Amino acid sequence: MGYLPLDKRPLRSHKQGMTHIFSHPHLLDIAPLSVADITHVLNRAEFFKQALLGNSVPRTLEHKIVLTLFMENSTRTRNSFEMAALRLGASLMNWDEKVSSAAKGESFSDTIRYLASYNPDAIIMRHNEYNAPHFVAGILKCPVINAGDSWREHPTQALLDAFTMREIKGNLEDLRIAIIGDVAHSRVANSNMNLLHKMGAKVHVIAPASLQPQKITPNVTVFDNLKDGLAGCDVVMTLRIQKERMEVTEIPDDTAYFHAYGLTQETLAYAKRDAIVLHPGPMNRGVEIADDVADDPERSAIFQQGANGVPVRMAVLDLLMGRSV
Amino acid sequence: MGYLPLDKRPLRSHKQGMTHIFSHPHLLDIAPLSVADITHVLNRAEFFKQALLGNSVPRTLEHKIVLTLFMENSTRTRNSFEMAALRLGASLMNWDEKVSSAAKGESFSDTIRYLASYNPDAIIMRHNEYNAPHFVAGILKCPVINAGDSWREHPTQALLDAFTMREIKGNLEDLRIAIIGDVAHSRVANSNMNLLHKMGAKVHVIAPASLQPQKITPNVTVFDNLKDGLAGCDVVMTLRIQKERMEVTEIPDDTAYFHAYGLTQETLAYAKRDAIVLHPGPMNRGVEIADDVADDPERSAIFQQGANGVPVRMAVLDLLMGRSV
Amino acid sequence: MGYLPLDKRPLRSHKQGMTHIFSHPHLLDIAPLSVADITHVLNRAEFFKQALLGNSVPRTLEHKIVLTLFMENSTRTRNSFEMAALRLGASLMNWDEKVSSAAKGESFSDTIRYLASYNPDAIIMRHNEYNAPHFVAGILKCPVINAGDSWREHPTQALLDAFTMREIKGNLEDLRIAIIGDVAHSRVANSNMNLLHKMGAKVHVIAPASLQPQKITPNVTVFDNLKDGLAGCDVVMTLRIQKERMEVTEIPDDTAYFHAYGLTQETLAYAKRDAIVLHPGPMNRGVEIADDVADDPERSAIFQQGANGVPVRMAVLDLLMGRSV
Repeated sequence: MGYLPLDKRPLRSHKQGMTHIFSHPHLLDIAPLSVADITHVLNRAEFFKQALLGNSVPRTLEHKIVLTLFMENSTRTRNSFEMAALRLGASLMNWDEKVSSAAKGESFSDTIRYLASYNPDAIIMRHNEYNAPHFVAGILKCPVINAGDSWREHPTQALLDAFTMREIKGNLEDLRIAIIGDVAHSRVANSNMNLLHKMGAKVHVIAPASLQPQKITPNVTVFDNLKDGLAGCDVVMTLRIQKERMEVTEIPDDTAYFHAYGLTQETLAYAKRDAIVLHPGPMNRGVEIADDVADDPERSAIFQQGANGVPVRMAVLDLLMGRSV
Repeated sequence: MGYLPLDKRPLRSHKQGMTHIFSHPHLLDIAPLSVADITHVLNRAEFFKQALLGNSVPRTLEHKIVLTLFMENSTRTRNSFEMAALRLGASLMNWDEKVSSAAKGESFSDTIRYLASYNPDAIIMRHNEYNAPHFVAGILKCPVINAGDSWREHPTQALLDAFTMREIKGNLEDLRIAIIGDVAHSRVANSNMNLLHKMGAKVHVIAPASLQPQKITPNVTVFDNLKDGLAGCDVVMTLRIQKERMEVTEIPDDTAYFHAYGLTQETLAYAKRDAIVLHPGPMNRGVEIADDVADDPERSAIFQQGANGVPVRMAVLDLLMGRSV
Repeated sequence: MGYLPLDKRPLRSHKQGMTHIFSHPHLLDIAPLSVADITHVLNRAEFFKQALLGNSVPRTLEHKIVLTLFMENSTRTRNSFEMAALRLGASLMNWDEKVSSAAKGESFSDTIRYLASYNPDAIIMRHNEYNAPHFVAGILKCPVINAGDSWREHPTQALLDAFTMREIKGNLEDLRIAIIGDVAHSRVANSNMNLLHKMGAKVHVIAPASLQPQKITPNVTVFDNLKDGLAGCDVVMTLRIQKERMEVTEIPDDTAYFHAYGLTQETLAYAKRDAIVLHPGPMNRGVEIADDVADDPERSAIFQQGANGVPVRMAVLDLLMGRSV
């Protein structure tokens, strides 16, 4: 197709990424990625964002077949991965738990071994069990992309969050990012803490004691209130509060949570004047975030963040799958 | 691809449509369409019907991605839209409510804003709420095609019904079309009344008082019995009677409905000798239509009508999406 | 595309299949296939297995649309058919019972007539009713491929089982194959008995009296215990035992079944020293098969068998659909 190999591709004005080789077979978590790897993904994502705008996307996955396996509900992650794969020219094949033989008592291991034997060109999976993607990566010969496992990791979400922060703030180093809510049980927060640590950013976790994480990276400071936690922050990321978590907090209901940890124009004022607001979605408006913050044209980058899911996931698919084209 | 722009395309023997420009960004309802627009869609559909037969369909949607969003069940509409998109070379991406974050309490508006941010090339949607497609069209930059909303409109169904009538009867002007059944709650009937009024056809609504429409176009006459209503009709379109509606009629059950409004060879004889029978499907055989009418090789055009869903929806997709190819 | 017509294709080292014409319009059951037909499918599957390995699959179904209609759960059959169709370049369109108008009371016959009118290029279907694919084949103009109907037939399963046996044992003639379990209600067993009879192989059915088949082909001998039944066998195929069947046997529970008919290293020793183990899946480990047999690297060909689903189904799709390309 006359398409240049990866390391020869003219990455539009991102010289720092041009000669880097992304050598990971899978994307399971943030830990194995180097700063250069992360920068490379973000640069490649920027290339694809421009290519999407210019309607000039190179179809580097033509004739490739991507298997999706979502064992938990998803809108953003699933649809943006599907869009990313289709824009690159791949075909999609979906394994649907509801119509599968899992209902007949087959073990997850056997299901995966059969799917592996059909040799898809990549698998994108979400699973409620801890490290399930690692298990799958041990069986499949193709790239495995973790679209979220248990409370552990959601690496492409952290990459698109970083992409959005870098896009608006220029760089990640020395940024101060608040993460508000149920950080203890959030794979999004966990992947973000890991990635932001690598990239030299500071993180303020803001949560009631029962929802504070046990394990934190060295760049994290933990707060139990918005006023102290938001001070000096460039980015304010609030997480969806899950109703079932409320039982274990000292916060009895939605209204009380909103009162203590809800992001409003008033509480947002504790952060820097030019702080931006992110949310991985889905939003519970009126619980963790007020409507006028979610829709603030100056401060909210929430839907820009969502939109960035496509080019970032294109970059991941392309780097893992597209090189032989 | 050497494919001519729309206004240069040699529309097989439909000169009247050749120089018309279809300038609507969406297809949400019949109201904004002019007689020239409708004629243009029907001509383009005839072009595609011939192209399908000749296995020579121009792949005007190659590399385009069509998002389908069906929030109500569908067989005919959904599958014929999917077939139409695939035949034109597009890829399909389905948003599935059952596995989405709607289950996590996300607002419909937020879901649509995220989907919009992924920039599909068109969206085909069915929704139980009044005017939902208008709402979506206000958010998305791409064409929105209404595949049925509430009791309001189902414009592609009216277009394919008109296509079928024109195909068999030669033209629509001065035809007399009976629509039998629950017209009050039928988006199919409503879109048909609007379209047939524009095209100069007369409509006889035949229904018990409780199922007669409140709002009718000037070309409509309302009847409460088959004998009077079918007199002089060229086309007899009967609608599926929904069980839940029976409660509000004076008609106690299936048998009574069939007796009063069921289309049989005997009642069909009230219409013109060469009258044809249509039904948008799905049919409740033995309730609104007898088997020997549904399967009458001379009179029933029901499956021809169903088949026409593909070329008519190809025309709609092509006119809304295909021009830049 | 410079692609040779079928009878000119250089079938890699399978000269016997090169000049055979596969002239069946559908694949509904094994009965109408000749020995030459079956050999031709297996040879063509071997060609595709090599082409998959060499990443040189001819895209003989480019621009074709395959409709899948699964009215029973499936993992292996469905996913390997989908992979086969996609690898050959076809697009997939799925009819989903759960979101269809079947829920609105439409007859199966009417649903099929509508789907037929959209002119898919092939239909792959699984249905719980006896001979449903024959009914569908009577309506559609395109090839119909039976992916399993009732307890009757599952022809592509028998073809891939035969492919696997031939691949390992060199030929099918004079092989002795044990089939263990609920043969009476197994479409897999039934298709296998038919195919193996044609190919000159002997079958030992091993089952308790209540699960023994009423109708057997002349090459079958029936046994009620593993020791006698496995003697002299080259291939041991065990079937999934369905819990609901246990009621009608004299075997009260899983443990008792495993004791009497479970395949273990001990019971497998009754067969030939070089006997291989097959299972159509999904496996109930610990019920009809022990873990160390299922995963025995020397004896178990179960996942190789599963993998062969793709090239065998590619062969079937190609032979039925690909000729005009």
